[in-house]
Amino acid sequence: MFESDETVVIRLGHRPGRDERTTTHVGLTARAFGADRIVIPEAASSTRSTIEDVTARFGGPFSVEQAGDPVQWLAGWDDPIVHLTMYGLPVEEMVPDIRAQCAGGRLAVVVGGGKVSRDVFEQATWNVGVTNQPHSEIAALAVFLDRLHGTDLGDRVFEGAEEVVIPSASGKRVTSETEGE
Amino acid sequence: MFESDETVVIRLGHRPGRDERTTTHVGLTARAFGADRIVIPEAASSTRSTIEDVTARFGGPFSVEQAGDPVQWLAGWDDPIVHLTMYGLPVEEMVPDIRAQCAGGRLAVVVGGGKVSRDVFEQATWNVGVTNQPHSEIAALAVFLDRLHGTDLGDRVFEGAEEVVIPSASGKRVTSETEGE
Repeated sequence: MFESDETVVIRLGHRPGRDERTTTHVGLTARAFGADRIVIPEAASSTRSTIEDVTARFGGPFSVEQAGDPVQWLAGWDDPIVHLTMYGLPVEEMVPDIRAQCAGGRLAVVVGGGKVSRDVFEQATWNVGVTNQPHSEIAALAVFLDRLHGTDLGDRVFEGAEEVVIPSASGKRVTSETEGE
Repeated sequence: MFESDETVVIRLGHRPGRDERTTTHVGLTARAFGADRIVIPEAASSTRSTIEDVTARFGGPFSVEQAGDPVQWLAGWDDPIVHLTMYGLPVEEMVPDIRAQCAGGRLAVVVGGGKVSRDVFEQATWNVGVTNQPHSEIAALAVFLDRLHGTDLGDRVFEGAEEVVIPSASGKRVTSETEGE
């Protein structure tokens, strides 16, 4: 089990229009897998409202921050940084170190789309590969956070939810009661 | 370690244009995390060529099949089916059963986008939730396959690759030698 004071996901390489849906998926994945906040570009405005709608319905806390330039935002971050990249070192080997150094502290997790600048590779505390194959920043983020937390996914509690899904073998069961702690 | 005779991913709910990039991510994630094949709609033609390009460069085997109606394609599948849905039973509880029943055999993994019909819930052998939160079919597929295989991600060998990434702490290292078995 990994507990940070704050885990923030930073979305680099967003191309307006083209990446709106993938950036939304990055944000929803960050929330579902235990991050506290996501930083997205100013341009990704429909993404912000989708994520905030989901958080209002299914609970939080989770917040969305928009930055004019997420790379510059990252330059002001003084705590450890994980940069997820297909060129990085194996996630299965890096997780113990990351856990040890970041437990109780703050952690930034950077995901890119296409071309991430050399500066980000250099600023990162760890460049981590979730496989060394080209696939998806959404997949990489999900598997990284899953392995970082290393616990039962269902144990996470979302506060203030208007809707809670009841796991079901064959249908859709949702309660609209508010589930508190 | 899980070995199937064949693991096929079926992408339902693709909306032409809007979902082209997410369907591509689903396909690349399927390949990177050990599936053998993906079935996508006829409409997703740029997705097909992107996945085939990646397979040619980074190795396989992995194939792409286009179906006029993936739901109908699924109706002709007689082997076990995992349907990934936020309404399903916890992945962490279902994986041992799925492994036991599918090792050495064939397995279909169904991911949807938006609305998946009731029939699919009923046809599925297992409706599996990768968390019971709304996030991303790409994230769900990645975490499901990662947990199903439960092995070091870097152990997977891709045959016939023109390019192989060498894991690196801070840069991009790629060899263009063909790496065989």
